[in-house]
Amino acid sequence: MQDAEEKLPVDELLRALESADAEAVRVAAEELHYADLAALYENLEEEQRERLLTSIGPEMATDVIAELPYPLIEEALNYFKPAQLRVLLGNLSDDDRVDVFQVVSEETQRRFFALLGPRDKELTRSLLKYEEDTAGGRMTTQVGRITADMTVKQALAVLRRDREDTQTLARIFVVDEQGRLVGRVRLRDLAFNTWDTPVRTIMEEASEFILATADQEEAARVLSKYDLIVLPVVDEFHHLLGVITYDDALEILQEESTEDIEKLAAISGEQSEVAYLNTSSTDQYRRRVFWLVGLAFVSIGSGYVMFRFSGVLQQAWMLSLFQPMVVAAGGNSGGQAATMVVRAMALGEISAGSALRVAWKEAQTGLFLGLSLGIAVAAFISLLLPHLAGSTGAHFGFLQLAATVAVAATVQVLSATTLGALLPIFARAIKLDPAVVSAPSLASMVDVSGMLIYFTIAGALLRL
Amino acid sequence: MQDAEEKLPVDELLRALESADAEAVRVAAEELHYADLAALYENLEEEQRERLLTSIGPEMATDVIAELPYPLIEEALNYFKPAQLRVLLGNLSDDDRVDVFQVVSEETQRRFFALLGPRDKELTRSLLKYEEDTAGGRMTTQVGRITADMTVKQALAVLRRDREDTQTLARIFVVDEQGRLVGRVRLRDLAFNTWDTPVRTIMEEASEFILATADQEEAARVLSKYDLIVLPVVDEFHHLLGVITYDDALEILQEESTEDIEKLAAISGEQSEVAYLNTSSTDQYRRRVFWLVGLAFVSIGSGYVMFRFSGVLQQAWMLSLFQPMVVAAGGNSGGQAATMVVRAMALGEISAGSALRVAWKEAQTGLFLGLSLGIAVAAFISLLLPHLAGSTGAHFGFLQLAATVAVAATVQVLSATTLGALLPIFARAIKLDPAVVSAPSLASMVDVSGMLIYFTIAGALLRL
Repeated sequence: MQDAEEKLPVDELLRALESADAEAVRVAAEELHYADLAALYENLEEEQRERLLTSIGPEMATDVIAELPYPLIEEALNYFKPAQLRVLLGNLSDDDRVDVFQVVSEETQRRFFALLGPRDKELTRSLLKYEEDTAGGRMTTQVGRITADMTVKQALAVLRRDREDTQTLARIFVVDEQGRLVGRVRLRDLAFNTWDTPVRTIMEEASEFILATADQEEAARVLSKYDLIVLPVVDEFHHLLGVITYDDALEILQEESTEDIEKLAAISGEQSEVAYLNTSSTDQYRRRVFWLVGLAFVSIGSGYVMFRFSGVLQQAWMLSLFQPMVVAAGGNSGGQAATMVVRAMALGEISAGSALRVAWKEAQTGLFLGLSLGIAVAAFISLLLPHLAGSTGAHFGFLQLAATVAVAATVQVLSATTLGALLPIFARAIKLDPAVVSAPSLASMVDVSGMLIYFTIAGALLRL
Repeated sequence: MQDAEEKLPVDELLRALESADAEAVRVAAEELHYADLAALYENLEEEQRERLLTSIGPEMATDVIAELPYPLIEEALNYFKPAQLRVLLGNLSDDDRVDVFQVVSEETQRRFFALLGPRDKELTRSLLKYEEDTAGGRMTTQVGRITADMTVKQALAVLRRDREDTQTLARIFVVDEQGRLVGRVRLRDLAFNTWDTPVRTIMEEASEFILATADQEEAARVLSKYDLIVLPVVDEFHHLLGVITYDDALEILQEESTEDIEKLAAISGEQSEVAYLNTSSTDQYRRRVFWLVGLAFVSIGSGYVMFRFSGVLQQAWMLSLFQPMVVAAGGNSGGQAATMVVRAMALGEISAGSALRVAWKEAQTGLFLGLSLGIAVAAFISLLLPHLAGSTGAHFGFLQLAATVAVAATVQVLSATTLGALLPIFARAIKLDPAVVSAPSLASMVDVSGMLIYFTIAGALLRL
C-alpha cells in the first residue's frame, strides 16, 4: 500500500529525531498515522523514544501510546511531567485507560489515579473490577445511548451532544429508564427518517449481547459469527454497560491464534505483545527451555526401550534402518490429528460431547494412513531393499523385516492418531487449554510406545 | 450467550423439519439468525437441507446460503427452481454473488449468468476478473459515494436513494467527476452539520486505500493496523472500485491463521471451509498422507546412520539410552524456532531483509537452550546414572558418555534452532509460503544430522 509515498515522511521523521529538532519532529510526525508512529517507536533507541513522544506533545502521544504493546507503556508514560500526564490520561478512551492502569505497577497506578478527574476516576475504578480477559475488561463505555420514547429529533440532539464521547455511531443502543438494553437503531435510520418519528417505531431488537463476565474470546466469536460492528455488553440485570467493537474482535482472535500456534510448538508462557525482533534472547529462552528439557528427559524412555531390546537389534541390524521411521511416523500423524482437533475446538466446531465422533473419525483416518504407510514401506523393503543390501541378519529375512515394519507402522499411526485427537478433548474436559497437547509432547509419548511395538513384533518374529 | 433462550427455536425448527410442515419450518426459522441457520444447515441430512431451504423461500435462503461454506453452496442452490434462483441470485450482495460464481462448476456458472439482470450480469463479470484471493476479488461495490461539490443536503439525498445498495454507511467516500477517490466523510459528520455545508469543507483525506490487485491478506492487515471499518479499493488510476469491510478482514485473518497452523503440522492442501466434524475421513486422509509417507522415507536416512554406526553402538550399548533424546531435542527446538519465525512473518514483523538479525537472535537462544540441556543431561549421567546402571560398556566410562551426550545435545539444539529460524525466511525468499517449513519436516532433516553428530562424537571418544 502506497509504500513509495510513505517512505518519505518516515525518513524525514528519523532525520528530525537525529538532529534533535523538536519542531521538525512534530511536523514530520503529523504526516504519519498514529499506528505507524507506534510501530516506528518500538524500533527506536530509548533516547529517541523520549524525544519523539515529548516533541509531539500529550495530545498526539495519547493515540500513539494506546497502540503500543503493553510492556512499553509504562516507560512511555514516564517521559511526561504530571501536568502533561493529566492531559494524556484524560484523553485516553476509557477502555485504553483501563488497559494502561492494568499493566503499570501498583505504585504508578496510585500516582495515575491522583491525576484523573472525579468522573474518570470512578469510571476507571468500576471498569478495573472486570478481569482483563473478560468482555467487561475489554469493553468501552463510550456508546451512543438513547431511549425508546424519544423522537428522531431528540435522539439526534442527544447523540450530537455526546458525539465526542462515542467511539462509533454505527450502532446506537436504546435503553429504558433503568438503563436496561431494549433495542438498537442505526444512525442511517435516524438520519433518513422524519424528525417526529418515535424511536420506538424504528428500533430493532438487540438480540445479540454478552455478559460482562464472559470470556473475551466468546465475545470475539459472537462478533465474528454475526458480522457485528459492535456487541453490547450487559450485566446480569440486562443493564447496558458498554460495547465491544469489531477492532477488539480482530485483536482478540489474532492473539488467540498466536497463543495456540505457540502452545502447539511447545512454547510456554504468555504470548508477547512485543514484535519478535524486539524481544530479547533471554525472553525467548525462558519461554522454550522448560518444554525442551522436560521432553528430552521423557525421550530417555524411548532410549530405555531400545536399550532393553539390544538383543533383538543385535540379531538383525537391519532393524535399525526403520526404527526412526516407525517412531517419527507416530509423532507426525499424532501431531497432525491433535492440530486438526485443537484448531476445530478453537473455532468452536467441536464440543467435549462430540469426543466419540471425533475419536471414531480419527481412528478411521489413522487406519487408512497407517495402512498406506505400512504398504508403502513393506513394498520398499521386499522389492527394493534386497537389491541394495546383502542380508538382514541371522534368522530374519526381508519378508519378516517387511512384516515387522508394516505392522508396527500401522499400529503406531493408528494409535497415535486416535490419541492425538482425544488428548485435546480430554484436556478441555479437565479445564486445561487443549493446545497444551503440543505436537512435541505427543511425539515424546508415542515415541516410547512406537519403539516398544516395533521391537516386540521383531522379537516375536525372531523367536519363531 | 443466551443459550437457554436459543435452544427453544432450534428444537422447534428441528421438530418442524421432522414433521415436514413447511409453514412451521418457516415460522420457526424466522426466530433464528441466518448465521445460526447456516450452522444448523451444515449438520442436517440432505433431505432436511432441501426441506429447510425450500420452506423458508428464496429471500431468507439468500442470507443463509451466503453464510455457507463454499463446498455446500452449489448443492444448496440446486434445490431451487429457475424462477426462485433468479430472485436468490439477484438478492445476493455483489461480493457474495461473485463468491458463488467462483465456486460453482463452469456449466452452472453459465446457467446462473442467464438468470441475472443486465446490470448484475455486467457487474459480476467485471468482479470475476479479479483473483479470488485479491482485494478486488473480495471487495463489495456497494459503497456510499458522493462528490465534493455536493452540500450535506444533496449528499444525504443521494445516500438515502442508494441506501438499500450500500453495505455500510459507517464511512462514505468522496469521488471526483472521473470517479477517483478524493476523500471520506462519516455519516455522523453529515447528520450533525447544517444542510448547506459543502461536503468539501467536512471531508477528510482518504489516506488508507489498497489496489484491487493486492493480496487479500495485505488488505486485512491494513484494516487491522489502522482499525478501519472499511478500506477503499482502487485501480491503478485511483478510481474507487469498492470497499473491503471489517468482517472480511476477520474472516481472512482467521483463514490465514488456520492455514498456517495446519501447514506447520504438515497438513497439506487447501484449508477446508467445512466444519471439522462434517469433513470425511477420506478428505482428512488425503490432506495428511503425502507428508506422512514422504517424511517417513526421509527418516530412513536417520536409520541408515544408525545402521552404519552399529559398531559404535555395540561397543557401548548405553549410548542407545540417549540417542532418541538428542534426536528429539533437535526436532523440538527447531520446531519452536520455526514456529516463532513463521508467526512473526505472518504478523508482518519480519521481512526477508532482517534474516541476519533473526539468525543471530536464534543462534544465541539456541546456544543457551543447547547448553542448558547439555548441562542437565550431563549432570544426570554423571551423578545419577552410575547408581542406576552397572557399567556403560567397554572402554567407555560414564564421564565419556556424559561428554558425548552434552556436546551432541548442544550442537544439535544450536544448529536446529538456527536452521529452523532461517528456513522459513529462505522459503519466503524463493516465493514459497514460510509455513511449508513444518515442524515435522524440519525434524526429519535434523534427525539425520543429530544421529550423525551423536555417533561421530561417541566413535571418536571410543577410539581414544
